[in-house]
Parts: sequence; structure tokens; C-alpha cells
Amino acid sequence: MTTTAKLYDELIEQLQKVTLLKSCSELLCWDEQTYLPAEGAEHRASQLSLLAGIAHEQATTPRIGELLSELEAAGDTGDVDSPLAVNIREARRNYNRATRLPKRLVEETSRVISLSQQAWVSARKESNFATFLPWLEKVVALKREEAEAIGYGDGIPYDALLDEYEPGASSAEIEASFSALRDELVELVAAIRESGKQPDISILTRSYPIEAQRTFGTAVARQIGFDFNKGRLDVTAHPFCMGVGPGDCRLTTRYDEHHFPGAFFGTMHEAGHGIYEQGLNPGAYGTPMGESVSLGIHESQSRMWENLVGRSRPFWSCFYSTAQKNFPEALGDVGVEDFYAAINDVRSSFIRVEADEVTYNLHIMLRFELEKPLISGDLSPADLPEIWNESFTKYFDITPPNDSQGCLQDIHWSAGLIGYFPTYALGNMYASQFFATAREELGDLPECFGRGEFAELKSWLNSNIHMRGKQFRAHRLVEVVTGEPLSHEPLMQHLHAKYDALYGL
Amino acid sequence: MTTTAKLYDELIEQLQKVTLLKSCSELLCWDEQTYLPAEGAEHRASQLSLLAGIAHEQATTPRIGELLSELEAAGDTGDVDSPLAVNIREARRNYNRATRLPKRLVEETSRVISLSQQAWVSARKESNFATFLPWLEKVVALKREEAEAIGYGDGIPYDALLDEYEPGASSAEIEASFSALRDELVELVAAIRESGKQPDISILTRSYPIEAQRTFGTAVARQIGFDFNKGRLDVTAHPFCMGVGPGDCRLTTRYDEHHFPGAFFGTMHEAGHGIYEQGLNPGAYGTPMGESVSLGIHESQSRMWENLVGRSRPFWSCFYSTAQKNFPEALGDVGVEDFYAAINDVRSSFIRVEADEVTYNLHIMLRFELEKPLISGDLSPADLPEIWNESFTKYFDITPPNDSQGCLQDIHWSAGLIGYFPTYALGNMYASQFFATAREELGDLPECFGRGEFAELKSWLNSNIHMRGKQFRAHRLVEVVTGEPLSHEPLMQHLHAKYDALYGL
Repeated sequence: MTTTAKLYDELIEQLQKVTLLKSCSELLCWDEQTYLPAEGAEHRASQLSLLAGIAHEQATTPRIGELLSELEAAGDTGDVDSPLAVNIREARRNYNRATRLPKRLVEETSRVISLSQQAWVSARKESNFATFLPWLEKVVALKREEAEAIGYGDGIPYDALLDEYEPGASSAEIEASFSALRDELVELVAAIRESGKQPDISILTRSYPIEAQRTFGTAVARQIGFDFNKGRLDVTAHPFCMGVGPGDCRLTTRYDEHHFPGAFFGTMHEAGHGIYEQGLNPGAYGTPMGESVSLGIHESQSRMWENLVGRSRPFWSCFYSTAQKNFPEALGDVGVEDFYAAINDVRSSFIRVEADEVTYNLHIMLRFELEKPLISGDLSPADLPEIWNESFTKYFDITPPNDSQGCLQDIHWSAGLIGYFPTYALGNMYASQFFATAREELGDLPECFGRGEFAELKSWLNSNIHMRGKQFRAHRLVEVVTGEPLSHEPLMQHLHAKYDALYGL
Repeated sequence: MTTTAKLYDELIEQLQKVTLLKSCSELLCWDEQTYLPAEGAEHRASQLSLLAGIAHEQATTPRIGELLSELEAAGDTGDVDSPLAVNIREARRNYNRATRLPKRLVEETSRVISLSQQAWVSARKESNFATFLPWLEKVVALKREEAEAIGYGDGIPYDALLDEYEPGASSAEIEASFSALRDELVELVAAIRESGKQPDISILTRSYPIEAQRTFGTAVARQIGFDFNKGRLDVTAHPFCMGVGPGDCRLTTRYDEHHFPGAFFGTMHEAGHGIYEQGLNPGAYGTPMGESVSLGIHESQSRMWENLVGRSRPFWSCFYSTAQKNFPEALGDVGVEDFYAAINDVRSSFIRVEADEVTYNLHIMLRFELEKPLISGDLSPADLPEIWNESFTKYFDITPPNDSQGCLQDIHWSAGLIGYFPTYALGNMYASQFFATAREELGDLPECFGRGEFAELKSWLNSNIHMRGKQFRAHRLVEVVTGEPLSHEPLMQHLHAKYDALYGL
């Protein structure tokens, strides 16, 4: 065994331990959102803080630094895209980030975001921003401290946080790509509005019994390729997907008897994330080669299954009769074309996760514009509801009636996930670009969907994206897979192809 | 601050960390039994093994040994029953036990019992002992190694394991008290058989819709004092209670539409454990003063609520009409006396957890007799089904038709819980002795139950037992609370008072 091989094995063992420990925290977080008794929150916060502290200690153990330095100095790690080189590159990045964070800050953040999420659940339920404000202030202060500790270029502390979720991205680049997208989206939204066409969306708020929603959503998630022997679907206030580890990936959704799309497309969305997690290389578990690229790439998978598959006409050619059988009262007298038009209705609405494909990205841009000043200090948390409503009115021409439908709607900030939102819009762009290539390479994808066959697309994603782990950073992965750098054009092409037809533009 | 106070504070901090870390493992174990996807077992085993290793490292850190030695040498810990003296005494016991176990053995045991429990679930379902045997062999080998590492007196390795669950107990003492109890039980069982009376137990296997069982069981658990803001009730193959930490106590049960007593008395039983956990002093969490005394004392609480309360005549004076409302088809035409007789039917049966109060202890004695030779090596795991069935036939005069109803019925051995069973019979003895004292001190307990009032008994248990934590070892607690050493007489008095009347003896 060469010296390099020995050092590398030791490094891998260290990394796997840290991942395994973090996966324990993940399960505790999942439980916190799903089944934790009301008065167990304080104890859960203590557990998570302790685990975060130990994981941080292990992730920053000087031995990892030594191993990395020796491996880097040895220089015989082969091709830059080899598993060995990739694991060393990403381990270095993680180690540098982690060692810059004091343990006290890690533990304190873990503790605060655990309690703060509980506070958010109540605040959202009662639409009471005041009870959440002290927690938001704590979270923002901690995230600012984190940005300072990590460091950033261009004088933009927000970039230090963004980089956590989308390695290598900067707010300047995102602003540039958002700006191109924004203009074309606003134009499309206006054209749709002026078309005068409005599908009858009241059919989606008829009575859809929750048990039937669960049955139908689960069956569809299984059919598109989510493996329930290696995962579950539960109910939470805010839907999410958590890849706890090999063989254990957990999706959540929320049901509303009088809103079919919420849970259904939510389930498709989370199943898309889940299919990514289940498609990672289990043999590389615990190392960067066994991990997802970035949140943007993750989101590209969920949005692809949710929108490019789940809201497509061929998909419903296959599933509509089953949907009618599951919801005879709601859909018995509705034709598939009316249903397809309704689930693709485009109009301004308050809730991001229920927004249509076209306006969705505007919701993201609004949040991106508020996050940066929250972190720079130019926006005080106390002013958030007012600024949110102002910006919202500017973007959407409607004003949220309360904070539950405004700035309290998302769990992210309560969970310390600042810098996370822009990855959603990046995900939409990645999704369309990947999907265009998949269609080119696989040919008859829509016809497959019409027959209820999704294995071809899933395998393509497995080999082109999932199994590669963190081999390439997001921007390079896009180039490797699609042959082109990231562009907003495939997204706009998809939107025009679909909505020009639906709205006769 | 005195030197002792400073050392003591540091010790407490160390102990709390270990408890908190173990509570993370507990949540993972709970999830493993309730919601873990089938293929997540391997990863869960790795998680639990890692946490067990870290907890063991922390529990055996030499600093704890130093702190204990300095505190013991200082000698100013006050009264032997003071919180300070108790915490030091019990911390010393735990430290000595823990430091005798090599980390490798702890990790390996954690890993094996996690996988072995999964194997047991399948083996029990298919009544296939052969698939469980290799796991049982691994578990027994590890537990023998554990006994050797811990050490034992009297040449009985089993005692080293027993002491884990019932500190200070020995198999010789247990044998003595079982032997006195056995003779009187066998006599009572014979008298009941000879009475010729047999209640109509077919009413208990009519159709009891599971949703109604859940509603009724939950309502009763709440009314006797289990706080659902600080706990939950879920479904598992083998029911248990897990006190994860302050504000988070989890009960489980299993429902069978055609067997009312299983889930109902199972829920009462686990709620009894839960009331103990919820009654511990949260201010002492993480230290011995905030922990339960022993498994025997824990079982005294569950058996008290299950049998002395839940199977009593006054209890059903209060709840029978509600039961009839919940199960109109099954109980509409059944009078309360017939129901009371049916739930107190005494006869030989295969499943311990469904056994009546009288024969139950014989199930325990059988297991106790098999565990000792399993650990000494006189009984090979492969021979277990045969010996089980032989002993069972000797004790009960019936032979299990398969291993699911025989040696595969309990989770314990798969979970490495060898030495645990005798605490169940001890629990029955403690329960009767405590309850007799409670009745003397509180006067009108049965009248309270008849009115659906349980707060008096619960408060009495809270202050006499729960809030005391580990202040006294089990045998001393019994003396302090009841004024007498442990005896099997209160149990036999209770059984005679009840069954002599029911069977006209």
C-alpha cells in the first residue's frame, strides 16, 4: 500500500464518521418536524446542539488538516476529476469552512434554530410575526457572525452563506442571471394576463379526501421511481426531503382537503429530491463522491419531476383516469384538458410553494433581494413584514392579507437557511437545461410518460447526475451533461412552448 | 465555591453530556422500531454503533474517574441519601461498569443488536427460528464476553448481566423469592382450574375496530395521567416505553382487531412506565437523581396501572359504559360482570405479554431458568426451541404450536436484554407491596377509580417513588416506602382477594 493510499484511507474514515454523526442529527431533525411531542422541543434542542458540537469537533480535528496537507503535498492524486482528487478537493473546502467556525457558534446556532423552528410553527399558525421576531433576530445575528467567520470576497457577507448551499456561486452572478430571466418572465406573465384566458381553477379546490390524496400521491411517487423500501412519506408543516443515509430517505408533505395541487405536486417535488438521494452511490457514502452537488442541482431534480414531468400533458394522459377514480366527486365531470389547464394556471398568488411555474421564480427573486440586506444589516428583521408586503405588491400587484401568507410562509429563515432561496431559481434553470438534453438523447420521453414509464429518465439522471456525486461543481456539471454553460434560455423555451399553446399567445 | 462543589459541578456536567448523547441513541432506536424504512437497517446500525462508541468514550473518560476519586477522598458529601452522595455513588457504579467494557465490545454489541432486532422481526413473522439463530448466537457470545469483562461473584456470570437492570440483585436471591412464589402460584392455578369456572372469553375476540381501540386506549391513558403534550403513542411489533428526555416520552402498542386486551392493557402498561418517566425530576435530568431506580421498580409502575388499576372492578365501573359506546357491536350485549370476569380469565396460554396476572410470573420463571444456562454455556442457542417447548409443557401443560408463539415471541434476547426478564416478576411483587401501602395511606383508592379519579394515586407515586430518582436502591426503596422488606405475600394476598372471589375458591 502506498503512503498516499494509506493517508487517503485514513482521511475517508474520518470523513465517513463525520457524515454518519451528522446523519444522526438529521434523523432527530426529521423527528422534530414530524412526531416530537410539543414539550420535547427544549430537550431536542439540547440533543442537537450536543451532536452539532461533537460533529464540528470531529470535522475540524487537526488530523484531517494534516492528512489533507500531506495528500496535497504528495501531488499524486491523479486526474482532477478522479474520486481521489475530488474527495480531497471537497474535503479541503469543508475543512476550511468548518475550522473557521468557532465551536461555540456552531452549538449556539444549532440550539437556536431548533427552538426558532418551533417558534415559527406557532407564529405561522397564528400569523403572529411578533412572537417570531426575537428568534429571527437571533438567527440573523448568528448568520452574520458566521459570514464574518468564514470570510468572503467583494465585500458581500451574503456570499459566504450562499457558498454553503451553492459552492462557487456569487450573488453578482446570480443577480446577472436573475436579471435576464426577470425581464422575460415579466413579459410572459403580462402576455398571459392580457390573453384574457383564465382556466377554471375552482375544480382544484373541490373536496379531495385526504386519504385518497395520500394513496394517489404515494402511488405516483412509487411509479416515477421513489423506492418506499428505502424511504417514507410523512406529514409536516413545511414539506421537505431528508436523505438520512443509504436505504433511508424521508419525504414529507402536507394535505389540504380543498387544495389538490399542494400535496400532489409537493409529493412529486420531494420525490424528485428523494430519487436523487436514492440514486447516490451508496459505496461512496460519507464522502463527497457520494453526495449531491449543490442545492441548485438538487432542486433541478425536484422541479424536473414536479413540473417538466408532473405538470406535462403526457403525464396526465397516463394518470388522469386513475385520478378520476380516486376523486370521483371532484373530477368525475372534468375533462383532462380542463384539468391540465387548471394545474397550469398562471396568476399572482401569495404562497411560493403553490405558485405556478412562471411566477415561481419571481417569489425567489423577492426573497433574494431581502436576504442580502438582512445579512448586510441594511434591513432590520423588525421591518421585514412591511418591506415584504411592499416588494410583494410591486412584483405581483397583490398584497398579502397577513404574515402567514407573507413573510412567515417559509421555514427557511427560522432554520438558519439564509442564502438558500436563490438555489430554487437556479434549480429551475438547471432542470430545463438537463431535461432538454435528456429529451434529445432519449428521444421519446413524453411518449414514455404517456405510457406511465419513467425508468428511462430516471436511469439517465442516475448515470448523468446522481452517481457522479460531487465530481463536478454545478456549473461544470451543466457543461459536462448538456455541452453548454448554464443559461436561462432552456427554461424560457420550455415555458413558451407550454404556455404559448395554453394561452394562445 | 468550595473545591467539592466545583468538582461536583464538573462531574454533573460530564454525566449530563453522556445521558444527552444516549438519549439521541434512544430516539434512533425508537425510530428503528416505528418508522425506519426496511432497507435503512444497515445504516441505522452504523449510526447506533458510532453513537454507542462516542457515549462509551465519554462515560469512561479518565476525567470522570479523577473527579470521583477526588470527591470520594474529600469525604464531605454529607448524608448518604443526599443528592450529592447519591449521584457520586451511582456515578461510581456506572463508571466502574463502563470502564470494564472495551470500546470495541460496546460498538460491536450496539451494531449486532440493531441488526439482530431486524432479523428477529422477520423471524417472528415467519416463525422461522433458523434465520434468527445466527444472530442469537452472536448476541449470546457478546453478552458472555460482557459478563466476563464486568466480573461477578459466586461464579455466576449471569449475575453480572442481571446487575445491569436490577442493581444489587443476585440470581440466588431471585431464585429464593421465585421459589416461594412458584409454589403458591401453582397451587392457585390448580385451584382455579379445579373450580370448573371458565368465563366466556370469546367476547374479547369479537370485532374491536382498530381506530376505536386507539381512541379508547389513548383516552384512558390520558385520564390515568399520561401527558400527551410530553409524549406519544405509536405502533410497533413489540410494545415498549422510551423516556427520551424531559417532555418526550414515547409509548408503543400493537393492535389486533380480534383481541381487545392486547392493545388495551398493553397501553395501560406502557402508560404506567410513561407516568414514571414523566414523574422524574426534570431538574435532575442527566444525573442518577433524575433516573428510575431499576427495571423492577419501573415494572412495578406499569403492572400497577395495568393490573391493580386497569383490571380492577372499580375501574370498569367507571369505564365500561364508554367501552360499550366505543365497541357497540362487541360489547353491546355484554354485562360488566361478564366483561370483568373475561379480562381476568386465568388459564395457560402461550404469549407472555397477553398472560393473566396469575400465570404471568410462571412465564418469567421459565425464561429465567433458560437465560442462566445460555450465559453459562450449558445451553446452546440452537437447542433453545426444543428446551423452551419442553419447559413450557412442564409449566403450562400445553405445547407451543410454533416458535412465534414460543421462544421467538419476545424481542429481549434479540436486543441483547439478557438478565432483564426476572425484573418483570420482581415488578409484580413490588407493585402489590407499594399498592397495599398506597391504599392504607390514601384510604378510598378503589372509590376514586370508580369515579375515574387517578390523580391521588399518581401524586402518591410521584412523591414516594418517581421524584426520588435513584436515591435508594430497589430493596431499600421498598422498605422506605412500605416499612417492610420485599415479600411475595402482598402479591399473593392481592391475587387471592381477587381470584378467590371470581372463582369461588
